Amino acid sequence: MEENYQCESKTEGKPIRCKAAVCRKAGEALVIEEIEVAPPKAWEVRIKILCTSLCHTDVTFWKLNAGPAAAFPRIFGHEAVGVVESVGENVEEVKHGDRVLPVFNSECGECRDCKSAKSNICTKFPFSHYNGMPRDGSSRFKDSNGMDLHHFLFVSSFSEYTVVDIADVVKISSDIPVDKACLLSCGVSTGVGAAWKVADVEQGSTVAIFGLGAVGLAVAEGARQRGASKIIGVDLNPEKFEIGQQFGVTDFINPTYCSQKSVVEVIQEMTDGGADYCFECIGLASLMQDAINSSRPGWGKTVVLGVEMHGSPLSINSGQILRGRTVTGSMFGGVKTKTDIPFFVKKYLHNELNLEGFVTHEISFQDINQAFDLLREGKSIRCIIWMDK
Amino acid sequence: MEENYQCESKTEGKPIRCKAAVCRKAGEALVIEEIEVAPPKAWEVRIKILCTSLCHTDVTFWKLNAGPAAAFPRIFGHEAVGVVESVGENVEEVKHGDRVLPVFNSECGECRDCKSAKSNICTKFPFSHYNGMPRDGSSRFKDSNGMDLHHFLFVSSFSEYTVVDIADVVKISSDIPVDKACLLSCGVSTGVGAAWKVADVEQGSTVAIFGLGAVGLAVAEGARQRGASKIIGVDLNPEKFEIGQQFGVTDFINPTYCSQKSVVEVIQEMTDGGADYCFECIGLASLMQDAINSSRPGWGKTVVLGVEMHGSPLSINSGQILRGRTVTGSMFGGVKTKTDIPFFVKKYLHNELNLEGFVTHEISFQDINQAFDLLREGKSIRCIIWMDK
Repeated sequence: MEENYQCESKTEGKPIRCKAAVCRKAGEALVIEEIEVAPPKAWEVRIKILCTSLCHTDVTFWKLNAGPAAAFPRIFGHEAVGVVESVGENVEEVKHGDRVLPVFNSECGECRDCKSAKSNICTKFPFSHYNGMPRDGSSRFKDSNGMDLHHFLFVSSFSEYTVVDIADVVKISSDIPVDKACLLSCGVSTGVGAAWKVADVEQGSTVAIFGLGAVGLAVAEGARQRGASKIIGVDLNPEKFEIGQQFGVTDFINPTYCSQKSVVEVIQEMTDGGADYCFECIGLASLMQDAINSSRPGWGKTVVLGVEMHGSPLSINSGQILRGRTVTGSMFGGVKTKTDIPFFVKKYLHNELNLEGFVTHEISFQDINQAFDLLREGKSIRCIIWMDK
Repeated sequence: MEENYQCESKTEGKPIRCKAAVCRKAGEALVIEEIEVAPPKAWEVRIKILCTSLCHTDVTFWKLNAGPAAAFPRIFGHEAVGVVESVGENVEEVKHGDRVLPVFNSECGECRDCKSAKSNICTKFPFSHYNGMPRDGSSRFKDSNGMDLHHFLFVSSFSEYTVVDIADVVKISSDIPVDKACLLSCGVSTGVGAAWKVADVEQGSTVAIFGLGAVGLAVAEGARQRGASKIIGVDLNPEKFEIGQQFGVTDFINPTYCSQKSVVEVIQEMTDGGADYCFECIGLASLMQDAINSSRPGWGKTVVLGVEMHGSPLSINSGQILRGRTVTGSMFGGVKTKTDIPFFVKKYLHNELNLEGFVTHEISFQDINQAFDLLREGKSIRCIIWMDK
């Protein structure tokens, strides 16, 4: 498969006709259609997707039927791995044949944020254009009627080919299996980054994780690698404890069975006063509050990773903060894509990062709607969608 | 004065009759009365107060007429400097004649928090007993009728003599003038500590300070010492800009004259997108929200120092946090009293900390009620109350 890309691209400079899973209307099943993918313009890269996976954010936007982010017809998908088919003008960072991850979090390398080690939020390419290409918001996809199809989060990986800005491309080693690399394109990097970069979890510390989806499990994996002494997982799904143990979860709380005490009280008891680090990986203001209250006075740090699903504000008793607690948040786990993702790959290759356990299902591209069912029913952590199977 | 304390205490082991400013009822003027101060029990230190000053927290509790913290008759005052008159059993850290600061924030040195560099919130002596001595809540003061008088915040410095637990005593060099040392007992240490220890302000960074009382001005002084490039002061009192400039305030915003734009917008414009560090030094939830919104996405850190005066919760849009902002808080500016206050003294003695400008008024002990008037009218930053004048 990949060997084809060692020689020059035969399609360079020309539109490519290929298959894509198009979402025509909010909440409706995706339809495999033949589309046309334009050649990359300046600063752009056309990528042949090898495999992709489904993240909750895809599902959230797939259901969205109002507002500026509800843009249909659209090609979803933002967690993937691929090979560079061709590059546009001014692209020197990658070339035809390179193994790459397309990522939603841009890194232009030029703005004040990209130049600072403290931020991973590129100010040159904010999210305002995420229905199209980041520089001008336009589309590189046309359906068989010649109509534009919207992009999603600068990636649109539910297509055999996609076009991505060079600011959203990370070159990686081809030593890592593609299905493991794919995970690092969004969810797993977010969780590991949150543990390593945002919280900076220390050896011997106690950790509480609200929500054991891929992000929460990746937080656990990051905390385990740092030598946390106790990793408490909180989830309503009792099956999450078993999978959580693969990633270092030592204790499990199912709020359904905490009728005598609140989850906060249980965590305080388990940790002798509160966890050193708490992570909210769901996106519910009430859980964010629980996380803060479960964190230890004096130094407890709460990392908010979930986008609040109802737009509710987070209400904090200022006295809780005054007692030395910290609340922080991050997009993409504070990960600076072009620096940190290759580091995560290296960690995996050195057996210092468990990626195997995240892949619970694998399907072929034509069955992509099954991935939606599995994730929505809480049956899958990550379902790898193979483009050529 | 102080030479008397080089020889042995003549009063050791005996009650001392002396003058104290007693508050008999919430909001009423203090009355100078003759009281009796018991000898220190085990782990306690009896201190002859040299000078004291009035902090907003005294005024807040002085006005309080309901709840468990409204305890009268009471001896207020928690910012002071003195000389050890005698010590109780088990006290080896200080001896008769030592120059000391009594402080409200305990450091037992034994609990997990005191042993950690990350916390300054002693868990052995929490605030639950602050109407009396920290170990048992009892009083060392009696009025002329033999009735107990309540303590305040473990210090009660509006008395010629007081008894303080060794966990609340910091030995300092006698090279620093007493009126400057006094400031380090609460407000100024809180602000400087917040800038140095909690925020860890970096050279060239931008800072916004909401409220230019002693704490806010001390934040400015701390930020100035760290080489902040811009220090924006926000206060309704226009006179605060002049005094703020002594402590490095470079720009001043009076919200009264911001009718066209919000304070948040003004700060964002002044700092090209938001201040690196914001400090809330008043205790109003709405200002805490303004501070967070004024902090820069990507890495902006907001430090909450004010105790919310109406008990209102702090409401945060979780999207603001997800964009890489951090909210943290601290008691006493994260200062570990026995380590950090002597360091601040050294900084002053090396001309690396401006303490002069905080003292705007000086009065004698008998005129103590004037200090309340000056502070409540916003005329004073710190009024030194001399016990022997």
